[in-house]
Amino acid sequence: MPQASTLQSWIGGRWIGQEAHTPLHSALDGQLVYHTHLEKIDFNEAVTYARKTGVPGLMKLDFQTRAQRLKALALYLMDRKEELYEISHLTGATRQDSWVDVEGGIGTLFAYASMGGRELPSSNVLHEGPAIALGKRGGFAGTHILVPRGGLAVHINAFNFPIWGLLEKFAPSFLAAMPCIGKPATATSYLTHAVVKMMMESNLLPEGALQLVIGSTGDLLDRLTGFDAVTFTGSADTAAKLRANPNLIRESVPFTAEADSLNCAILAPDVTPDDPEFDLFVKEVAREMTGKAGQKCTAIRRIIVPEGQVDALGERLRDRLAKIVVGNPKMEGVRMGALASMDQHRDVSERVEMLARGNEVIFGAHHGFNPVGENCASGAFFSPTLLLCRNAAINTAVHDIEAFGPVSTMMTYRDIDEALHLAALGRGSLVTTLATKDPAIAAHAVPIAAASHGRVLILDREAAVDSTGHGSPLPQLKHGGPGRAGGGEELGGIRAVKHFLQRAAVQGSPTMLTAVTGEYVRGGAVKESELHPFRRHFEDLEIGHSLLTHRRTVSEADIVNFGGVSGDYFYMHFDEIAAKDTQFGKRIAHGYFVLSAAAGLFVSPAPGPVLANYGLDNLRFVAPVAIGDTIRARLTCKRKVDRNRTDEQGRGQGVVAWDVQVTNQHDELVASYDILTLVQKHQEHHCVDTAQQPVS
Amino acid sequence: MPQASTLQSWIGGRWIGQEAHTPLHSALDGQLVYHTHLEKIDFNEAVTYARKTGVPGLMKLDFQTRAQRLKALALYLMDRKEELYEISHLTGATRQDSWVDVEGGIGTLFAYASMGGRELPSSNVLHEGPAIALGKRGGFAGTHILVPRGGLAVHINAFNFPIWGLLEKFAPSFLAAMPCIGKPATATSYLTHAVVKMMMESNLLPEGALQLVIGSTGDLLDRLTGFDAVTFTGSADTAAKLRANPNLIRESVPFTAEADSLNCAILAPDVTPDDPEFDLFVKEVAREMTGKAGQKCTAIRRIIVPEGQVDALGERLRDRLAKIVVGNPKMEGVRMGALASMDQHRDVSERVEMLARGNEVIFGAHHGFNPVGENCASGAFFSPTLLLCRNAAINTAVHDIEAFGPVSTMMTYRDIDEALHLAALGRGSLVTTLATKDPAIAAHAVPIAAASHGRVLILDREAAVDSTGHGSPLPQLKHGGPGRAGGGEELGGIRAVKHFLQRAAVQGSPTMLTAVTGEYVRGGAVKESELHPFRRHFEDLEIGHSLLTHRRTVSEADIVNFGGVSGDYFYMHFDEIAAKDTQFGKRIAHGYFVLSAAAGLFVSPAPGPVLANYGLDNLRFVAPVAIGDTIRARLTCKRKVDRNRTDEQGRGQGVVAWDVQVTNQHDELVASYDILTLVQKHQEHHCVDTAQQPVS
Repeated sequence: MPQASTLQSWIGGRWIGQEAHTPLHSALDGQLVYHTHLEKIDFNEAVTYARKTGVPGLMKLDFQTRAQRLKALALYLMDRKEELYEISHLTGATRQDSWVDVEGGIGTLFAYASMGGRELPSSNVLHEGPAIALGKRGGFAGTHILVPRGGLAVHINAFNFPIWGLLEKFAPSFLAAMPCIGKPATATSYLTHAVVKMMMESNLLPEGALQLVIGSTGDLLDRLTGFDAVTFTGSADTAAKLRANPNLIRESVPFTAEADSLNCAILAPDVTPDDPEFDLFVKEVAREMTGKAGQKCTAIRRIIVPEGQVDALGERLRDRLAKIVVGNPKMEGVRMGALASMDQHRDVSERVEMLARGNEVIFGAHHGFNPVGENCASGAFFSPTLLLCRNAAINTAVHDIEAFGPVSTMMTYRDIDEALHLAALGRGSLVTTLATKDPAIAAHAVPIAAASHGRVLILDREAAVDSTGHGSPLPQLKHGGPGRAGGGEELGGIRAVKHFLQRAAVQGSPTMLTAVTGEYVRGGAVKESELHPFRRHFEDLEIGHSLLTHRRTVSEADIVNFGGVSGDYFYMHFDEIAAKDTQFGKRIAHGYFVLSAAAGLFVSPAPGPVLANYGLDNLRFVAPVAIGDTIRARLTCKRKVDRNRTDEQGRGQGVVAWDVQVTNQHDELVASYDILTLVQKHQEHHCVDTAQQPVS
Repeated sequence: MPQASTLQSWIGGRWIGQEAHTPLHSALDGQLVYHTHLEKIDFNEAVTYARKTGVPGLMKLDFQTRAQRLKALALYLMDRKEELYEISHLTGATRQDSWVDVEGGIGTLFAYASMGGRELPSSNVLHEGPAIALGKRGGFAGTHILVPRGGLAVHINAFNFPIWGLLEKFAPSFLAAMPCIGKPATATSYLTHAVVKMMMESNLLPEGALQLVIGSTGDLLDRLTGFDAVTFTGSADTAAKLRANPNLIRESVPFTAEADSLNCAILAPDVTPDDPEFDLFVKEVAREMTGKAGQKCTAIRRIIVPEGQVDALGERLRDRLAKIVVGNPKMEGVRMGALASMDQHRDVSERVEMLARGNEVIFGAHHGFNPVGENCASGAFFSPTLLLCRNAAINTAVHDIEAFGPVSTMMTYRDIDEALHLAALGRGSLVTTLATKDPAIAAHAVPIAAASHGRVLILDREAAVDSTGHGSPLPQLKHGGPGRAGGGEELGGIRAVKHFLQRAAVQGSPTMLTAVTGEYVRGGAVKESELHPFRRHFEDLEIGHSLLTHRRTVSEADIVNFGGVSGDYFYMHFDEIAAKDTQFGKRIAHGYFVLSAAAGLFVSPAPGPVLANYGLDNLRFVAPVAIGDTIRARLTCKRKVDRNRTDEQGRGQGVVAWDVQVTNQHDELVASYDILTLVQKHQEHHCVDTAQQPVS
C-alpha cells in the first residue's frame, strides 16, 4: 500500500471525510495502512435520513422482496470476495480466519434470504397466529402481528469480525425494514468500509437502508427513540456503559448486547484417551485457541476436565500447540496470524500475567515462540498459551479474567455436577462444548448448562462428520448468552427478524382480523363465488374466497371399501364388539376416509391453476363420523404468499393455504385443517424478480 | 375495622413485622386502615431462600405439575374471593373494579394452568423445534431448548391492581420454575398481603416459591444476577430509575417494564353518529374513563375524532358522564368509586390543571360534582373530566401529560393518517382502539398503529357481542407497548413463560439431541422392538421406539379404487393425457392414498393401548408415488406428554406424538408427518393429580 488512505463515513447518501485523523496500522508489521477521517458527522442528518428516506424506501418493498434483495446482494459480494480477503490480511487473519468473516458474513445474507423467502409473507405484516376466539358467540377474536417499527437500528460492532459483524445484524434488520447505521470498531474499520462501499456500488439497497460511521458515534445514541433499536458486540464493560445511556433508558430503546465471555469446553467423565471423543476434544480446543488468534467472543477460555484426565489432555494439547506455526499468513504453513493490533497485544500480555499467578503455564512463549515472516517483530504476534488451574472452585480469577487472544486455562473437576458448577461460575457465557459419548450424560448436563449458556454444542463421533464447531454462530441458531455474555439474542432464524419488529396483539371481529392479518380468520365473512376457487389464478384469488361443497352420506360400505383400499382394519372401524367399548360406543369411519372424502368433495378434477397439494397442517379430528352421518366441507382461501417464483416451465406461481372445515349434518365440526397448494399465475403475466433489478 | 393492623412481609418462610410504620388510609373516607411494618427486611436472606429453597422445590415439579398447582391454587382462591372483595372496597373500587383485580387475577391463574397444560411438556426442558440439519451427512443438527434460569423473579407492582398485578406475573414465572419476590405499591399493599396470605394457607406452593415485601425493596436489586429477572409496572419515571440500577446493568439482568402511557381511541372517518359503531365508541370511552376511576395503565387518555364529529361526540360523552353516580361503591347506584389515595387526588388535580391550559373543559367538576356516601369529603373522589384540544398536532402536552384518573382529552383530525400520526405522538402506548365498520380502513390503519402500540382493538358491531374491551389485558394476548409504555412484553400466552426461561441453541448428533430435548430427532438412533410400539402402554413407551413396516407396491388398481372411495378424480391421478403435461410426466397416486396406505401398514388392528389418532401435523408430500412404486413406513415414538389425565372411564392416559416417514423402493422420502395419539397407561397404575395434594 503506497500511501495510507483516509476512510470515509457514508452518511445521508454521501461519503464524508477527506482529512486524516487516527492512524490505523497493519497487525502484521505495524505499517500505517489507513486513517480515520477528521470531519465530524452530523448525526441529526444521519438519523433524519434513516427515518425520512430509509424507512419509506424499505417499506416500498415487502418481506419477500427484501429477502430477494438480500440474496442478490450476497451474490454480488461473493463475486467480489477476493478484494475483501486481500484487505482482511492486514488484520493479521489467516485465509481460514478471513473465510469466517468474509464468506461467513456473506453466507449469513444467503441464509436470511432463504429463511425469509420460506417463512415470511409477501407483505409488511407478519401474522403470528393462530387467532384465538375470545368469546362464546364467535364475534371477537385475538391474535398477534409483527410490523416494522418505523425506526432505525444502530449496530455497534467489535474489531474481530468487521464484515460478519455488520452483515449478521444487517440481514435480519433489513428484512425487518429497519434502516441501519453501522459503527465498526475503529481498529479494523477499513474492512467494514470496504464491504459497505461494495454494498453501495451494488445499487441493490434502497436509499437510506444503510449508513456507515467511521470513528466515534458522537451524540447518535442521544437521538434515538423507542421505535429504534441498538445492538452492541464487544466487551462487557462497554456494553454496561452504553446500556446506561440516559436517553436509551428514558425512551426504552431496545438494546441487545453480545459480550465476550469466559466460554468453556467440558470433557465428560465417560470419555477416556482411547475414545475418538478425546481426540475430537483436543482438536476442538486447539482450533478454538488458535483460530483468529483466539480473538473470538466464542473462543474456549476454560477447559474443564476430569481430574484423572488432565495430565493426558495437557500433554496432547501441548504437543498440538507446539506444532502450530505462527506468523504472516501469506507464508507457507502458517496456521495462526497476529492479534489485531499492538494495543491488543499489550492487553493480552497483561491478562496472561494475571492468570499465571497461582496457576501453571503448560504451554507458552517460553516454549520457543518464533513467528515467521518479514518484520514480524513489529507485528502483534502472540504465542498460544495454555494454563492449568487445580483449584478452580476457589481461584475465581480464571472464571473472570479474559485474555482476548490464543489463551486458555485447564481446570479439573471430580464429577459432572462440579464441572457444571465451574461452567456456571463464568456468570453467563455465549457457548459451551460438552464432549461425551453417553446420551444420558448429555440429557442430564445440557439442560443445566443451558441455563447459563446461549449455545451448547455436544461433541461425539456421530456429530464429528458434520460439526460446524464450538466457535461458529450459525444464522439458524441463537447467538448470545445470559449475564456476562450480555443477555442478548442474535440470529436464531426468523427470531432475529422478529427482534427488529414490533409485536402487537390485535383484537376484533374475525372479519376485521382477516383484513388486518391478510390471513383468513375463522368466523370472518367469506366470499362465496360462482367460480370454484381452485379455478382462479393466483392473482385473482382473494383471502376469503370460499366454497361450500355438496354433501355426502357416509355408509358402512364406505368404511369397508376404505379398509380394503388402505389396509387399515383398526377395530374402531371394523370390530362391532370392541367398538362398543370405546368412548364412541360404535364403529366410526376412518379419520383418513373423512379427509379423503373431503378432498373428493372439493376437488376440481380438470387441469387448472392449482398445481399441487403439497402438504397439510394442523389436522384435528374434532368429532367422530358414524355410519349414516352426512358430511360436507368448506374450503376457504386462507393465505397467499407471492415468492416471485416460477416453476420449471417458467410459469409464475404462488403458495396458497386453504382453510378446510368438514362438518356433519348438525353443522358440527368433525375435521379441521389447512391444505397447502401451489397456484399458477396467469400465463401472460411475467414473473418480476425485483432482486435482479437495480433500484432506480 | 376496629384497629389498624400491621401488615407483614413473608420472607424466608416466615412473617416479619410487628411494629407499625407508614399508615395506610381508606380511599373512601380517609380512615386509617393498616400500617406497614417497621422491621427491616434482610434481603440477603430473601434472595438466598429463593435460590436455595425456592428453585429446588420448583424444579422437583415439572411444567405439567406446576400447571396443575396453578389450577388448584386458582380454585382455592376462588373459594375465598369474597374476603378479597371486602378488603378491595377500601381501595375505593366498585364491585366491577374489584372483579377485574380479584377474579381477573384468579382467572389469569386458570388461563396459565390451561395453556401450560396444553402447550408445555411433562419435564423441565421445553423443546422449541424443529431441529434443523446442519450438515450433509446427517450427523449434526441444531435446535433450541428453553430451560428454567435457576434464578428468581422480582415483581414490582403498581397500586391500581394489587391482586391481578401480582398474579399475572406470578403465573408465568411460577410455570417457568422461578421463585418470585412480589413487591406491591405500598398504598394498596394490604390487598396483595391478603392474597399472599391465602396462597400460603393453601399449602399448594413449594416452599420458597413466593415471598412478599411490604415497604421498600432496600438493596434487593443490588443482589440480583443475570440468571434472575425483574419486572416493573408503574410510572415511566420509576421504570427509568430502576432500569438504570448499576447492578442490573452490570449483570445484564432482564428487566421488563410496563409503564402507563397516553393510550388513545380513534373514531375512524367512516363512522357517523347513525352507526352502531358510534354508540359503541361512546360507551367504550366512557367506560374506560370511569372504570377503576380511570386508574388503569390502559385507560383511554386521548380520544382522536374526525373534525366533523367532535361536537356530536362531545355532547354524547358529556351526557353519559353526567349520569355516572360517583361515591362509596356500597351505595346503591354508584358507578364510580374513589381514587386510591389523597396523594393521587392531588396529583390528578394538578395534571388536569396543566391539561386545561389552552384546551376546553367539556365536562368536569364544575358540572355539579357531588359524590354520595358518608364522610365522602375525606375520600379521594374525583369528577370525570373531559377536555377538548383543537390543535393536537402542535399542543404536544396532551400527548405527554397523564392525569391518572377519570380524565381524557378529545382531539381532532382531518384524515386517518393524521389520526395515526397523533396516536404515535404518545411515543409508544399500551393499547389503542379503532372504531370502524370498514375492513379496508382497519387493514390500512392497524399495522401503522401497531408500530407504536402493544395492543390494538378494532371495534365494530360484529365484535361488540363478545368484546372484552379496550382496557382489559388478556392472558392470551401480549400486554406492554414500546417506548413510553416501557418496551416490555407480559402475558401473550406461553410467550410470557418463555420470557422467564433461558433459551439455548443446542447442536449435536440427532441421537444426542433426542436425549436432550426428550423428542425424537430424525437421524437419531431408533430402538427397533419386537413388540409393535402401538401395543406398549404409555409408561413403557420410550422416545425412539420404532417400527419399520412391511412394504406395499402401489398399483393402478389402488389409484382407481381410491378414486372410487374418495370421489377424488383429479387429473393428476386419472387423466393420462393431462398428467403428461405435469412436472411428473405421468399419473401419480393420491397423496391421501399414500397417507391411508401408510396407516394400513403400521396399524395394529386389535384393541390396544393406543386409544385414538386425534390429529396430524406437518404433513408434506415430498416426492410423488407412481404406479409400480413400493412404499413402506417408519413409525417412531417422537414425544410423550403426561398431563396426569384420565379418560371418561377413569383410565390414565397420555399424549404421544409419532414421527412418520414414508419411503419408496429407493429409500427416498415420499411423505413426512407427525401423528398425534392418546395412549393408555397400565390399568393398575392410578393417576396421581399432584395438584390436589398439599405439599409435604
